[in-house]
Amino acid sequence: MTAYLPDATHAPTLTSWVASANDPASDFPIQNLPYGRFRHAGSKAPWRVGVAIGDAILDLTLAATAEGWSEAARAALEPLARGDLNAFMAAGVTVRRELRAALSRALAQGSAQQAALAGALLPQAEAEYALPCHIGDYTDFYTGIHHATTVGKLFRPDNPLLPNYKWVPIGYHGRSSSIGVSGQRFHRPLGQVKLPEAEVPVLAPSRRLDYELELGAFVGQPNALGEPVALADAEDHLFGVVLLNDWSARDVQAWEYQPLGPFLAKNFATTVSPWIVTMEALAPFRVPFTRPEGEPAPLPYLDGAANRERGALDLHFEVLIQTAQMREHGAAPVRLSRSNFRDAWWTLAQMLAHHTVGGCNLQPGDLLGSGTQSGPGADEAGSLLELSQGGRQPLALPNGETRTFLLDGDCIVLRGRCEADGARAIGFGDCIGTVLPARAAAA
Amino acid sequence: MTAYLPDATHAPTLTSWVASANDPASDFPIQNLPYGRFRHAGSKAPWRVGVAIGDAILDLTLAATAEGWSEAARAALEPLARGDLNAFMAAGVTVRRELRAALSRALAQGSAQQAALAGALLPQAEAEYALPCHIGDYTDFYTGIHHATTVGKLFRPDNPLLPNYKWVPIGYHGRSSSIGVSGQRFHRPLGQVKLPEAEVPVLAPSRRLDYELELGAFVGQPNALGEPVALADAEDHLFGVVLLNDWSARDVQAWEYQPLGPFLAKNFATTVSPWIVTMEALAPFRVPFTRPEGEPAPLPYLDGAANRERGALDLHFEVLIQTAQMREHGAAPVRLSRSNFRDAWWTLAQMLAHHTVGGCNLQPGDLLGSGTQSGPGADEAGSLLELSQGGRQPLALPNGETRTFLLDGDCIVLRGRCEADGARAIGFGDCIGTVLPARAAAA
Repeated sequence: MTAYLPDATHAPTLTSWVASANDPASDFPIQNLPYGRFRHAGSKAPWRVGVAIGDAILDLTLAATAEGWSEAARAALEPLARGDLNAFMAAGVTVRRELRAALSRALAQGSAQQAALAGALLPQAEAEYALPCHIGDYTDFYTGIHHATTVGKLFRPDNPLLPNYKWVPIGYHGRSSSIGVSGQRFHRPLGQVKLPEAEVPVLAPSRRLDYELELGAFVGQPNALGEPVALADAEDHLFGVVLLNDWSARDVQAWEYQPLGPFLAKNFATTVSPWIVTMEALAPFRVPFTRPEGEPAPLPYLDGAANRERGALDLHFEVLIQTAQMREHGAAPVRLSRSNFRDAWWTLAQMLAHHTVGGCNLQPGDLLGSGTQSGPGADEAGSLLELSQGGRQPLALPNGETRTFLLDGDCIVLRGRCEADGARAIGFGDCIGTVLPARAAAA
Repeated sequence: MTAYLPDATHAPTLTSWVASANDPASDFPIQNLPYGRFRHAGSKAPWRVGVAIGDAILDLTLAATAEGWSEAARAALEPLARGDLNAFMAAGVTVRRELRAALSRALAQGSAQQAALAGALLPQAEAEYALPCHIGDYTDFYTGIHHATTVGKLFRPDNPLLPNYKWVPIGYHGRSSSIGVSGQRFHRPLGQVKLPEAEVPVLAPSRRLDYELELGAFVGQPNALGEPVALADAEDHLFGVVLLNDWSARDVQAWEYQPLGPFLAKNFATTVSPWIVTMEALAPFRVPFTRPEGEPAPLPYLDGAANRERGALDLHFEVLIQTAQMREHGAAPVRLSRSNFRDAWWTLAQMLAHHTVGGCNLQPGDLLGSGTQSGPGADEAGSLLELSQGGRQPLALPNGETRTFLLDGDCIVLRGRCEADGARAIGFGDCIGTVLPARAAAA
């Protein structure tokens, strides 16, 4: 069992010779050190693994050739220098910590490696990104109890939450192949929809296209098929987290989802942020997992001291929209909502322990979505379905436009930031996706 | 658009110099030529791609070194000789046909390559198998209308089929990581179950463990994200089919499945047969896709002349059980049911066209399950849930045992065979899986 406790790499006084990392507004101070895959924008070069630092990327293929790494750091860098983040994820916590400590020393003010590593930096403005790793299986949970309640109320005003909700970390398998990295642009999906007044369904572009604000957690160390991971060990199997937008076609979903769940309503695109913020970087922002008075305790396999004491995560989310009209007028994205991952009904460790309790094997690079993260307030909703009360109450945007669901050209930006007393705040980088017009149906 | 029509490689008079392939009972005559991955049982050698012929395997790594291949065949063999079936699947129909024709000539009586290839044969009895290819995403459909009706009746006697069933090829995303090849042995899963009389759920080994008889279709040629595949082109993107057992924990499913569908109830194990029977091999067994009088026609994107004329497949299924007691007494497996893929409500092409209509991309090696294939008769049910009427009516086995659901030690065998006038029958090889006792819950 790994306790993710703050150490010297989290010291708020620590600064980097990469000056932009010391800007208090930077998502990527030396206390963060998230991993991603990048190349020079427009090049056809193979994707490389890098670490974000300030407004730059430390290219690990180049960095690995520098002098001055410890033997452990050099071994940890070996798969990364080949561009293989999955192999590093598989290696587990100890190897990851060794490299974090080494990178922290290497990028700190006064590092003996500064001269050698200065040439291994690429400005983020000159980079483009791939998915940070190969994603085998993608699972999406439903841990946002305020989302589940608000959505449930739209259908069942007196009984919004189904009886299993407070007991089972509800989840389902999602589509891996259509997950893209921030910057993803996708066509409005066609799908079968059946209007209430219609006798039969039709194939049409979705008219109720929505986003969903989620956290995504990547699996590191695998478990074998048939070998469940106990809750106390679950965080050993987590690598880190990203922001995730689970784009959803509500009208397609309403018609197709019974009895086997969402399918085409969600498999046309899913967008994640480019940088995986490691479990180590999140250490200062861990908080107790609590349930309101009177709520049932989790079953024993989902309950434990470490999870109660530090299982949750204080992570501020923000959703913004930039419509095509805003872009034309040079207007910045405007905020739609804010929420916090503390309000999730289950922790990441509970999600992972539940996922494996029947024997399911998780592999390095597998992705676990948290489900839509809405807070208790009406303005803390992580989707338009909630913000517009099922499409009945259009949202007024500052430029005079309104929205119930997404229109073509709309760009959605997810942001995340962790702040705590005595800690340097860290961020996630933007998770951006844009809706393109529907294509004509294939003949 | 590829028409899979019989050609010279299907001639029923064609025989092989591999004598066992000429046994009328063989699943693998020269007219079949399915692909799989194998190695010497007990060895640690890398998996190789082979083609089943009679009771042997043609080792394509060895075969590729033989003289006498055409240039096209040699090019097609290149990825296969490296053990990479996915790359060959991606290459599409034309390449596959070239190699089929070449393999047919090479293995036929009188082949000039007989001497060179005789040394490239391994008896199947000396082999062990891997999954035939790397499976990225796995999707499971629900095309067995008799299954959906019977199961629906258990819950809604007056309205067994949901309103969307006859319009939408219902499907959901499944778990890739836990798919295993025939011979898979898995522990009875633990999961949350809530008994009707209980106030709260408990974590317990499933008491309603079941199998599901399905056909699995592998994707060959990919489509890009955002580019739907029209029905008329859908079969160009199919590589071939296997038998698939979608093991299911009914009690876990009943408690967890709302509102997002099955999750832990089905992700602990899925078993497929080792040999992918290609679309080419199935050509003589294609039959019209019909709907009973009065049933709605598919929406235009799921309707087309080729699909109506030859979209369905006449494939006989059989399910057998061998209990631990039978094994101890040396008794052979006994049949539980028979059915036919002709009774599916949707064709493979319709499944694929629907899957992509919203823009979802399918990749080489992706697997599409058909859903449980039950026929209209009570003895044609593809699961114990149906055969035992929801567990209310135990099945009597010939040795005096009874079953409502699976007990530890039970081994389920799926078989498939295609027969048609004027064609040599082909088979699939057994798809076998065995239930081991539950493990203790992780502490």
